[in-house]
Amino acid sequence: MADVYRLGGSLGQEAYFQYLFGVNDLEGWYGAFDIRTGRAFLFMPRLPASYAVWMGHILRLEEAKAKYGVDEVRYVDELSAVLAELAPPCLHTLDGGINSDSGLPMPAVSFDGIEQFTVEAQSLHPALTECRVFKTPGELAVMQYACSVASAAHVAVMQGVKPGMFEFQAESLYLHNMYSQGCRGSHYTPIFASGSNAAILHYGHAGAPNGRQMQAGELLLVDAGAEYYRYAADITTTFPVGGTFTPDQALIYKAVLAASRAVIAAMKPGVRWPDMHLLAERTILAALQAAGLLAGDLEAMLEARLGAVFMPHGLGHFLGLDTHDVGGYQPGGPERPQGAGISRLRTARVLEAGMVITVEPGCYFTRVLLEPAFVDPLLGRFLVEERLRQFLDFGGVRIEDDVLVTADGAQTMCDVPRTVEDLEAVMGGAPWPPPKGVPI
Amino acid sequence: MADVYRLGGSLGQEAYFQYLFGVNDLEGWYGAFDIRTGRAFLFMPRLPASYAVWMGHILRLEEAKAKYGVDEVRYVDELSAVLAELAPPCLHTLDGGINSDSGLPMPAVSFDGIEQFTVEAQSLHPALTECRVFKTPGELAVMQYACSVASAAHVAVMQGVKPGMFEFQAESLYLHNMYSQGCRGSHYTPIFASGSNAAILHYGHAGAPNGRQMQAGELLLVDAGAEYYRYAADITTTFPVGGTFTPDQALIYKAVLAASRAVIAAMKPGVRWPDMHLLAERTILAALQAAGLLAGDLEAMLEARLGAVFMPHGLGHFLGLDTHDVGGYQPGGPERPQGAGISRLRTARVLEAGMVITVEPGCYFTRVLLEPAFVDPLLGRFLVEERLRQFLDFGGVRIEDDVLVTADGAQTMCDVPRTVEDLEAVMGGAPWPPPKGVPI
Repeated sequence: MADVYRLGGSLGQEAYFQYLFGVNDLEGWYGAFDIRTGRAFLFMPRLPASYAVWMGHILRLEEAKAKYGVDEVRYVDELSAVLAELAPPCLHTLDGGINSDSGLPMPAVSFDGIEQFTVEAQSLHPALTECRVFKTPGELAVMQYACSVASAAHVAVMQGVKPGMFEFQAESLYLHNMYSQGCRGSHYTPIFASGSNAAILHYGHAGAPNGRQMQAGELLLVDAGAEYYRYAADITTTFPVGGTFTPDQALIYKAVLAASRAVIAAMKPGVRWPDMHLLAERTILAALQAAGLLAGDLEAMLEARLGAVFMPHGLGHFLGLDTHDVGGYQPGGPERPQGAGISRLRTARVLEAGMVITVEPGCYFTRVLLEPAFVDPLLGRFLVEERLRQFLDFGGVRIEDDVLVTADGAQTMCDVPRTVEDLEAVMGGAPWPPPKGVPI
Repeated sequence: MADVYRLGGSLGQEAYFQYLFGVNDLEGWYGAFDIRTGRAFLFMPRLPASYAVWMGHILRLEEAKAKYGVDEVRYVDELSAVLAELAPPCLHTLDGGINSDSGLPMPAVSFDGIEQFTVEAQSLHPALTECRVFKTPGELAVMQYACSVASAAHVAVMQGVKPGMFEFQAESLYLHNMYSQGCRGSHYTPIFASGSNAAILHYGHAGAPNGRQMQAGELLLVDAGAEYYRYAADITTTFPVGGTFTPDQALIYKAVLAASRAVIAAMKPGVRWPDMHLLAERTILAALQAAGLLAGDLEAMLEARLGAVFMPHGLGHFLGLDTHDVGGYQPGGPERPQGAGISRLRTARVLEAGMVITVEPGCYFTRVLLEPAFVDPLLGRFLVEERLRQFLDFGGVRIEDDVLVTADGAQTMCDVPRTVEDLEAVMGGAPWPPPKGVPI
């Protein structure tokens, strides 16, 4: 049987097509894979010579074959003839799938002559989606490069940010560090959110993104990724604009870091992802309780979904060719959990080796969530209002790692300073990563 | 009468809406203008409180009124009631227009209750388009800032580029210089085309854009703009990667520069734009003839459309809220000229004061154009094939200015080194702009 895929829209390569054929920036191509023989075919559009004047060298068939490592390359106008020669009992086309994250449908496959084949469009999409959930060593190497470049760019911002700079100037520094290493894009607009802006979860995407002048004494939350051969990194760091944490900032930061490290330490095959979300909530709430911002029974807080007041988003999402990668909710798999905050999880699956998922706990102080909570009979009883009101302009902290699930645990692919001490040292001029060996 | 517009798609603000109301990054807004009284109205969507958690502070009506300087701001769900109170004899809506450059239709205006009004959708679009062709002093000030930032970023690349760098690293340097000055985007992907890539007109947009390692001895063509409050700059510079022009490079560069300066000197109200295209062709062909690359009668070359072999694109386009700005071909205005090259002009209008148009002559050596020309009976007789074959890997030169037509002439809004001498000096470390006064 030959399986036929089609390239997607104009906003970069369709991810499934790149996943199977490695073609990452060309329009109007088709691909087919004969699952009886393992032979891969690409079909390229026949372009007019004038294309070369505007867009450059037109690949010859043999050049395309060598470049993409497939068994045969032909022209799109030969597609139905080539398929007819292969005489597949059935064409499994990549139709009808819905991206479980974006909710958008895949474009339907069509080509001249498709009517002569038996076409089946239901099975390929979930099968390929499941393949994409588990990263191969080759994919992991590409993702590691994106993570390493993004990590280094985060460190460059830590070392370059100064009070008085605008958020977008820090963003520009980030992008330059990323771009000049060959990661020439990001799947999303970076979020550089200082002061109370850090509590706006998608700040960088909104009306006046990253436009604020940063002040000493504030935190800066940087949620910025990188893209390499379309594979995404997605990292968040939070650090003080002036280089030194205040006691309150250190308190919240350490609460989130404790959640992050507890989750990564607990992750391994067999663990349910919603349980990791709850572990993060529990860790953060316990720290707020210990600091006197919350009062009462921890189990009762969790039961009341108090965690969602401080972390209104899900703990993390699959990462791969898409930033919010596919496969979070598959047919027959665990369904979306109920309850504030946790219902926003982009997957509820049981972890397995080879998955890459972000771990991004956060703690935010958001007026539109806290004000109603103060007067909510269920939630208000846990809130030490007088103390929490001092945090209304605090903003927030998020710490995000890209984490690979291994055979017996999990490991972050990021390399950025995470502790308060390391962050303050790097912002004070210490190198990162720290030199190996012992100074004499 | 009240005129109603609607915000466009998700790819940034619809240009006509921003043009009239100054709203430059918000979705789902409507605007109306009562042309009997001059009163301007904005209508904002009523957002749920949860919006603030993800996207930040929700503007109150009074805040929006102060921010955008209109007479009244109401909610979209009040739109038809407010309009009914105004009792317009007719609503002129912004429907049905076609962008004469992109060929794309405007989205149709609709809102709850529109059926109670007399609606007329034909007259507003051409009228507003004509307004956009002529820039106000306020618009020119914004465009001048974008041009100044883009100019400085071009200079930073000249001073930073080194043999061995990849094209995208020079691009990254450009973007960082642009972005950190508040021009946080560009309407198009920058073109950083070295060596023979410079002959690919839209190189940066193609399959493997700006991915080549630059070598000493080559030219680098940089076509890169900047965006400020959506207003575009669009500048091209060409200079040697190693800092020094070869004699052949200087020959072609000077030919294009002569065309550029001849056109700008000739531009003034009353001049036909197609005549400027022909002036550029004539200047370049004459220089190639003088250098022995062409032979024969200059008038006969022009008649044979030989210019299009070396400059297959139009001389320039209107610039404004769109890089290829609107109004190039208006109903009743001059029609698209016939003939190779010149048929690609994005306007054929007569120049008038207040227009901003790019002047971007180029001279390229393109195999897919030259090889057929060598054997063409009409074109081949002018080509000194032996000499031209030495240029097949030359690439090309383009020089692009953003030019304002004034009451009695024209002036460039760009400030970059243009002569061979100035370029070599700046690449050698001389400051730009040059210090004023005389050194003692």
